[in-house]
Amino acid sequence: MDVFEAMWTTRSMRRLDPDRDVSDEDVRTILEAALRGPTGGNQQPIRWLVIRDAETKRALQKVYLRCWEKGRKPYEEKPGTVAPNVLSSADHLADNLHLAPVIVIACACAGAGAGTSRRRQDASVYPSVQNLLLAARALGLGTTLTTAHLLEEDTVKEILDIPERVTTYALIPVGYPTGRWGEAKRRPLDEVSYHDRWGRLGPSVR
Amino acid sequence: MDVFEAMWTTRSMRRLDPDRDVSDEDVRTILEAALRGPTGGNQQPIRWLVIRDAETKRALQKVYLRCWEKGRKPYEEKPGTVAPNVLSSADHLADNLHLAPVIVIACACAGAGAGTSRRRQDASVYPSVQNLLLAARALGLGTTLTTAHLLEEDTVKEILDIPERVTTYALIPVGYPTGRWGEAKRRPLDEVSYHDRWGRLGPSVR
Repeated sequence: MDVFEAMWTTRSMRRLDPDRDVSDEDVRTILEAALRGPTGGNQQPIRWLVIRDAETKRALQKVYLRCWEKGRKPYEEKPGTVAPNVLSSADHLADNLHLAPVIVIACACAGAGAGTSRRRQDASVYPSVQNLLLAARALGLGTTLTTAHLLEEDTVKEILDIPERVTTYALIPVGYPTGRWGEAKRRPLDEVSYHDRWGRLGPSVR
Repeated sequence: MDVFEAMWTTRSMRRLDPDRDVSDEDVRTILEAALRGPTGGNQQPIRWLVIRDAETKRALQKVYLRCWEKGRKPYEEKPGTVAPNVLSSADHLADNLHLAPVIVIACACAGAGAGTSRRRQDASVYPSVQNLLLAARALGLGTTLTTAHLLEEDTVKEILDIPERVTTYALIPVGYPTGRWGEAKRRPLDEVSYHDRWGRLGPSVR
């Protein structure tokens, strides 16, 4: 698949087919793609946790649902800040997370490698997560980058035996989507870019 | 370009040709690709700052060089933690940042959109940055995701009139690379992935 097509059509797929499994080979492919993401000084701090075990997924779903119930409140309080279909599919995901064939969690040791502050560590994790999402799209697999679990991260770490020094960054359900691929809506570039100084609208002098 | 080829061959290109300009059209293309990245609740908090002005780039280079001189110390103190070619090309970049045809800075309002903690905001910025890097690669443009400027972020914000409530996430020089495209070295997947529990090596039960 062309790289631009992959980027344009990778949207969050929160409704996954519980009855169609994902092959180990495809899991390897998306993780190999994830490994190619850039990390500060090529320190590669990420560890990828791949969860297929049913009981473990069920335990994660319980925590995730609690987190999402808290996480959706700000949206409820400010109607219009989020599209209704995003909210309803996020609800669906929270209710059905354990039915995703695979859940991938991106972890990293806080301060792994030389000179990596917590803040700069994020820059060494999420680009690789995006590679994973794009590779999955190219294979026809749906994903969603979620972070709701961070509201109860300690519980998630306990479930997965993740050591204290390790931080989790994203929880990504992976499976075949039940919906169609399509382009997500975005604001026009000229409204979200500036040239040379903050506030000068558009990416270039006109 | 195929999405997998793009991911495999997008490596940090820190040596850029100062004499070969980047077209406005290509800048638009890589930013349009960046816009397609996922953001929590599709809140799209990112603002893209595109810098071409020579004086502004020079001012940024001075700050960046100071930051890099601090940022490289941990690597000096722990020889072997970073590959010598990475260090020397990073030195080159710090000395020549102002000669990059374009510098892109990814910014976001802290807490923009509903329910976005600082920590979860990172997850709504860096995936889009990765789209930018991949799109640039497909166009033959070299980039590097850098965060060294965060060590003196306030000075950078002052140079660019960035308001206090706004945070910068990445500074990305863009230009035609003088070196060759190639695959960056990565640890084997089976060493950096676990299945079902932390510590169970490999992405699947074997």
